[in-house]
Amino acid sequence: MDERLEKQLKFLLEIDKEKQILRQTHILGYERRENDAEHAWHMAVMAFVLAEYSDEPVDVLRVVQMVLLHDLVEIYAGDTYAYDEAGKATQRERELAAADRIFGMLPEDQGRQMRGVWEEFEAYETAEARFAHLLDNYQPLSLNDANGGKDWVSHGVTRSQIMKRNERTLNVSEAMGRVIRKVIDKNVEKGTIRDE
Amino acid sequence: MDERLEKQLKFLLEIDKEKQILRQTHILGYERRENDAEHAWHMAVMAFVLAEYSDEPVDVLRVVQMVLLHDLVEIYAGDTYAYDEAGKATQRERELAAADRIFGMLPEDQGRQMRGVWEEFEAYETAEARFAHLLDNYQPLSLNDANGGKDWVSHGVTRSQIMKRNERTLNVSEAMGRVIRKVIDKNVEKGTIRDE
Repeated sequence: MDERLEKQLKFLLEIDKEKQILRQTHILGYERRENDAEHAWHMAVMAFVLAEYSDEPVDVLRVVQMVLLHDLVEIYAGDTYAYDEAGKATQRERELAAADRIFGMLPEDQGRQMRGVWEEFEAYETAEARFAHLLDNYQPLSLNDANGGKDWVSHGVTRSQIMKRNERTLNVSEAMGRVIRKVIDKNVEKGTIRDE
Repeated sequence: MDERLEKQLKFLLEIDKEKQILRQTHILGYERRENDAEHAWHMAVMAFVLAEYSDEPVDVLRVVQMVLLHDLVEIYAGDTYAYDEAGKATQRERELAAADRIFGMLPEDQGRQMRGVWEEFEAYETAEARFAHLLDNYQPLSLNDANGGKDWVSHGVTRSQIMKRNERTLNVSEAMGRVIRKVIDKNVEKGTIRDE
């Protein structure tokens, strides 16, 4: 087998480990925690269904690649919960080292392209990155809401934490911004999101 | 919320159930069985990495959408194991009813587009469908090989069954065809695939 294909197949086996990175969010029904691979799949289907709501036009292929790859660094850096301030302080450094390692397994041209997509997501500066972040926030929000807000309750999450997390994504799509605000208001009213 | 968006968000919640459809294949390390959502995510990343090996040019966006959606019908029709001949006899009928139900949740235009992608996969007639089927076969083959062939052993799978399953996919990519044959030969030699 030639060296290029061998590298690609090794990378594709290595990324299987993403199926073992657990998130704080639970799957629908609350039976167990969701993992990063499931989260990425769910976001990718969302990208196809909801792309029409991005207020700026987006390249769907790029959004989909971005959401499929965005958590690969967590294979080595672990999942950092959105409201874990201590973890977030070291997150960038841990994830950069992980990106060197995982994208470095690929042939140089392909590794560079995919790392570029990941960096673009992190930099939050293009329409595609903004839309991918909207999905990254909406996907767990929708599951958590459907599960009666239990993950918010068990972590004591507050309205201001959620609003801060969604600060930049609320303006990506007027329609989805309304949906997100409605879910938050409903859960504050129910008491599953703390309001102080 | 308008009716269109409401339908889309309900569909996106419903498909979460794909995370509970277990396959016969185990994840890397053999700790547990893989589910359909993880399998689809893995295939979608493979589509980006391996598209260059399709002997016919493929539209990567279409392949990716196809692999992300190809198992949605199993939410209602269940997973049919590749070597379960009794299950396969009723598979098409069960999956058609499931497709009506799942794609019918979407707004008409979007449901039609996505069902079309699924039908294209099933019909096996385009370069994109052929490449998606190659990935659908290679993804579990690579995990099974990495796990020492245990899934083949526990199901008593034979070389002729695997060759029949790969009959059409072995010609989709010369390079990947060689890889698949090599994996099969190695496992027949080790005795993890039965040769009779």
